[in-house]
Amino acid sequence: MNWLDFGVDNCSIARTLDVVGERWTLLVLREAFNGVRRFDDVCEHIGISRGILTQRLSTLVDHGILERAPYQESGSRTRYEYRLTPKGRDLFPILVALLGWGDRYRADPAGPPVLLEHRDCGRQVQVGLHCAGGHQLTGPREVVVRPGPSAQPAPKVPDQQAHR
Amino acid sequence: MNWLDFGVDNCSIARTLDVVGERWTLLVLREAFNGVRRFDDVCEHIGISRGILTQRLSTLVDHGILERAPYQESGSRTRYEYRLTPKGRDLFPILVALLGWGDRYRADPAGPPVLLEHRDCGRQVQVGLHCAGGHQLTGPREVVVRPGPSAQPAPKVPDQQAHR
Repeated sequence: MNWLDFGVDNCSIARTLDVVGERWTLLVLREAFNGVRRFDDVCEHIGISRGILTQRLSTLVDHGILERAPYQESGSRTRYEYRLTPKGRDLFPILVALLGWGDRYRADPAGPPVLLEHRDCGRQVQVGLHCAGGHQLTGPREVVVRPGPSAQPAPKVPDQQAHR
Repeated sequence: MNWLDFGVDNCSIARTLDVVGERWTLLVLREAFNGVRRFDDVCEHIGISRGILTQRLSTLVDHGILERAPYQESGSRTRYEYRLTPKGRDLFPILVALLGWGDRYRADPAGPPVLLEHRDCGRQVQVGLHCAGGHQLTGPREVVVRPGPSAQPAPKVPDQQAHR
């Protein structure tokens, strides 16, 4: 397919970025995947302002990615922590993919700051590409992009632009 | 490990986001993976301003993710197109992960706008988690996070905050 013939208004990458594509949002999700679920803990650990964190958590709850759960420490009023829903946990490959590229190209000379291990066997975990036929793929050159059921034609451009 | 005991200044997720974490940057990369490499084509297809596109392309070239290559159409001056380097192509799993979540949770009722197929067998391609021991993983609960060689202790917080 010629990608330029198709519109990008309903692109699934763009739609994911609409929800979780902002830097602080992804760092809040990183905290959640690491078990840091309480407002003050997240605030302090990543150095985000309370206002921005409130807004990002609200967006994630509205989209069903995090859910608020009450907790109470002795002598304190009820507070809330933020837990990943199944929809939120499905974001995990995005974070592992970001981590893997950073580990490879941006880590300190000593190596990565964290290691992901398979709980069962202890070997290192990473993302990979595979197809429904069970084949492992090594990169984009093994992939063909085709129009899907909601593919849309690109909007027509004004003549002035078309003849540039 | 208790994630709060560790600093996040050298987090590989954050460092990847430093380079490619901005929305327009990821959409420019999406275009590159789909073979759209020329300034005017990218500009028009995704509706990005020329100034922002110039800045994003410059960042991607500076980081060795895209490389400029000259081309010339008859009767025109030499222009440049932007091609993914091997370092750039290694970002592919990030885009496929973003695509997969969007296809699942944000697509139109008809289905996804594009399909990724394995060039060899035609079956659908997606990202998955696997370990170096050859096991497929289904999600974060099968993963243990451990300190890596460049793990850093969390900075000490002032007493005032520690006793909040």
